[in-house]
Amino acid sequence: MTKLPTFSDIEKAHERIRPFIHHTPVLSSQSINQIVGAELFFKCENLQKVGAFKFRGACNSVFSLSEEEARNGVCTHSSGNHAAALALSARMRGIPAYIVMPDNAPEIKKIAVAGYGAQITYCTPTLQARESTLKKVALETGATEIHPYNYFNVICGQGTAAKELIEETGHLDIVMAPVGGGGLLSGTALSAKALLPDVKVIAAEPAGADDAFRSFYSKTLLPSVAPKTIADGLLTSLGSLTFQIVLNEVDQIVIVSEESIVKAMRMIWERMKIIIEPSSAVPLAAILEGKADVKGKKVGIILSGGNVDLGHLPF
Amino acid sequence: MTKLPTFSDIEKAHERIRPFIHHTPVLSSQSINQIVGAELFFKCENLQKVGAFKFRGACNSVFSLSEEEARNGVCTHSSGNHAAALALSARMRGIPAYIVMPDNAPEIKKIAVAGYGAQITYCTPTLQARESTLKKVALETGATEIHPYNYFNVICGQGTAAKELIEETGHLDIVMAPVGGGGLLSGTALSAKALLPDVKVIAAEPAGADDAFRSFYSKTLLPSVAPKTIADGLLTSLGSLTFQIVLNEVDQIVIVSEESIVKAMRMIWERMKIIIEPSSAVPLAAILEGKADVKGKKVGIILSGGNVDLGHLPF
Repeated sequence: MTKLPTFSDIEKAHERIRPFIHHTPVLSSQSINQIVGAELFFKCENLQKVGAFKFRGACNSVFSLSEEEARNGVCTHSSGNHAAALALSARMRGIPAYIVMPDNAPEIKKIAVAGYGAQITYCTPTLQARESTLKKVALETGATEIHPYNYFNVICGQGTAAKELIEETGHLDIVMAPVGGGGLLSGTALSAKALLPDVKVIAAEPAGADDAFRSFYSKTLLPSVAPKTIADGLLTSLGSLTFQIVLNEVDQIVIVSEESIVKAMRMIWERMKIIIEPSSAVPLAAILEGKADVKGKKVGIILSGGNVDLGHLPF
Repeated sequence: MTKLPTFSDIEKAHERIRPFIHHTPVLSSQSINQIVGAELFFKCENLQKVGAFKFRGACNSVFSLSEEEARNGVCTHSSGNHAAALALSARMRGIPAYIVMPDNAPEIKKIAVAGYGAQITYCTPTLQARESTLKKVALETGATEIHPYNYFNVICGQGTAAKELIEETGHLDIVMAPVGGGGLLSGTALSAKALLPDVKVIAAEPAGADDAFRSFYSKTLLPSVAPKTIADGLLTSLGSLTFQIVLNEVDQIVIVSEESIVKAMRMIWERMKIIIEPSSAVPLAAILEGKADVKGKKVGIILSGGNVDLGHLPF
């Protein structure tokens, strides 16, 4: 059986990555608290390096490698935040990063990843082409593949965000995170349950990409088929490792509409003056829809990232 | 001669308002640092209550009143952040706030001020009508007028932002703030010079509203005539009190173009994932234009506020 991470692994991860990450602020909004009738504490991973929590997991993975492993570098396939996070982490350790990207990835993301000094290999935009190209790159270079979420050290790194949050706020009744591949949710749940034995962990997922919701309640891993949501960070499906942790540690998964996501996103922009991507807004959307019952409670929420195209806002 | 505030007054103000204000975070961006070749530390008053540093000065003014003065409330004329800040401060002390607003003020600002429980009196949108209406309101109610910037306790409150910034960063070579009426700049300069004897204080101003620039270098108070800039928080001119402090404490005032303001604003949105209003971007604009020489230096910058209409962005 695969070894699952524990909170002690998250503590070690935190020591390892502390010199490299931003200790992001925890922000509150009295006006949002009034609207929802609860006390919300937002952990601002949109203000993390590369604009997303992904930097924590990538950084932990890169700095967990032995000298010998590290020499050959790291590789992954990604068109999103994980690619940038891995590229920056590798540059910080001074080792190569090989990123496989679909050739139709947005120009701005190609430039960002190249800007962090990664070597990009383009492929046709299918999962099959991405995986086979990555296999080829890994074989040629000897680089260690760092999966974006179904990977022990990535999960441990992601868990450090909730750890920092709870160390700052103290007691919380509820901790919430969005769920895509489940890396953030797994790490968050492990930290929350270890630090706050009575806490309830609630995940929020777009209805248009509800694999975690269906998998959780059927206790069977059911990947998404043609998921569709504005929360583009949550299109991925749970992996074998994250599914196990979610089953063990999470109390509830709720799904939300696209309209609520945009409404929650705009509320955070307008009232908190911070830029979040749609994925970050999914837990607040669940609260606004009444799906997550938070009345009178102290609630910690992980804001996952802030990478949006300012030229294409949904409002 | 009018009594000018000192750093000791700012310290007292800080003790007074500490329970009511947000201790806002100081954020940095490695990518912006790389672009400008300096280490910038941004004090995020866009994340302050009511979305602007103005809350500090209003709060200090309201809580400095004697019980007897407070009973009759406070009043001001304003269509902007000061109105909201004064209304919220008064509500926190449980006293009335009377706000004179031009009847053409944006609907969203009227709603915000009314939402904080203030009593609004509308007038025609001329300075003369605003001042005569305010005089009438003050006479009828006995409320204390709190000027938005040319007011001892307002200046002391605004100075607490730079105090917090420097307490967090330690040594800085340069401290920068935008200048409109000069309340923020005066308080910032007083704190900076008291805490960092060798610091250089540089103010940045839009070329389209350059009264502080002209007043400073001619040593004569020269108010703006028909100022025009996207930085709508900086349309006001220095007052008698703020002009004195600026002359005493500020080392340099530079002016910037509208294009640079928009460019700097977008840079902060994209790279720091925070929402700032155009006025906040003026110091970074001065750095990008090369007007403020910061190469290799540690620079503190006050981001003044984050109140923008998301439906009308300049990019």
